[in-house]
Amino acid sequence: MTKQISAAICLIGDELLSGRTRDINAQTIAKFLAAYGIPVREVRIVPDETDRIVEAVNALRAQYTYVFTTGGIGPTHDDITADAIAAAFNVEIDEHPDAIALLSARYAAIDTPFTPARRRMARVPEGASLIANPVSGAPGFQTGNVFTLAGVPKIAEGMLSDIGHRMQGGSVIKSITVRGAGLREGDIAEALGEVAESYPSASVGSYPWFHSISDHGVALVARAAKIEMLDEISERLETLIRDAGAEPILVKGENNRMD
Amino acid sequence: MTKQISAAICLIGDELLSGRTRDINAQTIAKFLAAYGIPVREVRIVPDETDRIVEAVNALRAQYTYVFTTGGIGPTHDDITADAIAAAFNVEIDEHPDAIALLSARYAAIDTPFTPARRRMARVPEGASLIANPVSGAPGFQTGNVFTLAGVPKIAEGMLSDIGHRMQGGSVIKSITVRGAGLREGDIAEALGEVAESYPSASVGSYPWFHSISDHGVALVARAAKIEMLDEISERLETLIRDAGAEPILVKGENNRMD
Repeated sequence: MTKQISAAICLIGDELLSGRTRDINAQTIAKFLAAYGIPVREVRIVPDETDRIVEAVNALRAQYTYVFTTGGIGPTHDDITADAIAAAFNVEIDEHPDAIALLSARYAAIDTPFTPARRRMARVPEGASLIANPVSGAPGFQTGNVFTLAGVPKIAEGMLSDIGHRMQGGSVIKSITVRGAGLREGDIAEALGEVAESYPSASVGSYPWFHSISDHGVALVARAAKIEMLDEISERLETLIRDAGAEPILVKGENNRMD
Repeated sequence: MTKQISAAICLIGDELLSGRTRDINAQTIAKFLAAYGIPVREVRIVPDETDRIVEAVNALRAQYTYVFTTGGIGPTHDDITADAIAAAFNVEIDEHPDAIALLSARYAAIDTPFTPARRRMARVPEGASLIANPVSGAPGFQTGNVFTLAGVPKIAEGMLSDIGHRMQGGSVIKSITVRGAGLREGDIAEALGEVAESYPSASVGSYPWFHSISDHGVALVARAAKIEMLDEISERLETLIRDAGAEPILVKGENNRMD
């Protein structure tokens, strides 16, 4: 059996913990990784504090194949992620010559001074390679198995375009969703448990939605590597929903990208 | 100095890790706690696996005053949170008589069978107290310093109405935001660092937004317990944004609820 390839995400930022900002980067990264068959197994959100970042990154990089961090790589005093990653890997941090070249050209082109604060964005841990930023220029960086991306969603997403070629993929998981409007989980729980037991190598989950008394229901999701198995499970889930009194609605997804 | 009151959130669910669902419960809980002056210091997202839930809950409940979990308390086979919490506390799990009474009355009222699967929702760890669910009936529960809520956002939010009276608050933190449209962080990084240094007891952060080339800017956020200090900081941030060539837009918030 090959080693299970896996990933973890460490979101860095006081604004995520205070409730000021609702994160979307974890979802973006998870969907991106799903296309490579790499499951995200853990997410942590930590504050802008060096020791907390170091602790989380070290715990995650020891346990998972790949770690993605977002946030804290801009030019301001609270952007401490590069220093924290260097501390986590116990290496020095210095200006990367390619990053300096890239940033100085960029600021010259838009007639904006390349200040000491902006030079901070060229500092990366010793041995790290740069990750291109097609949106706003200042690069992310890869240190060992840790990819450090920006926190601004559009920029984080842009940086993912320079990540795929660095990764070794797992097996791609397909999924299907069968929805039953008006049902409650209790209506299908027993029958669903039987389906899950019949297919131990698949993952079968139940996700209720509840928007109002007139708009609620249950979405049953199955994930498996084999499409034939998924087709079988799909039929059983449709029958189960019909038996509970609702008309099943089938949505075939790929790579978990169905919603 | 009094002990710092703090909280952590453990979101439970494969759907959050796969990217299928974008979490909103962490933000809802963080905003709720902010009103009590209780900062969230860490969030973890873990899969629907007992050992992973136990590990995360035990790590968090030892470190923070309060822990909130969401997800995995419905009637289906993948709803294992109650068992995992009991395992984390090393106590038995059993049907709570009040929960049985509540659920059997509820299902009788809507003429729906109270099946064994639905009885699962009455199982709570030994010694736990119930948390009312004003939305759909099946209760959450409190075990020591751990509050276990539903995963469906409307239901999780409803359950928070039965939480406040159980908590001891911290000092309420006020905040202000000053926005500078068209600015980049590098334009204000040095001046902002000076402001942050002048007020070590406040938290001063910079949050860039970037929607497009014509719609980007920087939001500067200051948090402090003293309103007089915030007023001073606010003036300095407005000046700083004006000096960088933009017209400052001030938003006064309370309890971080400004966005």
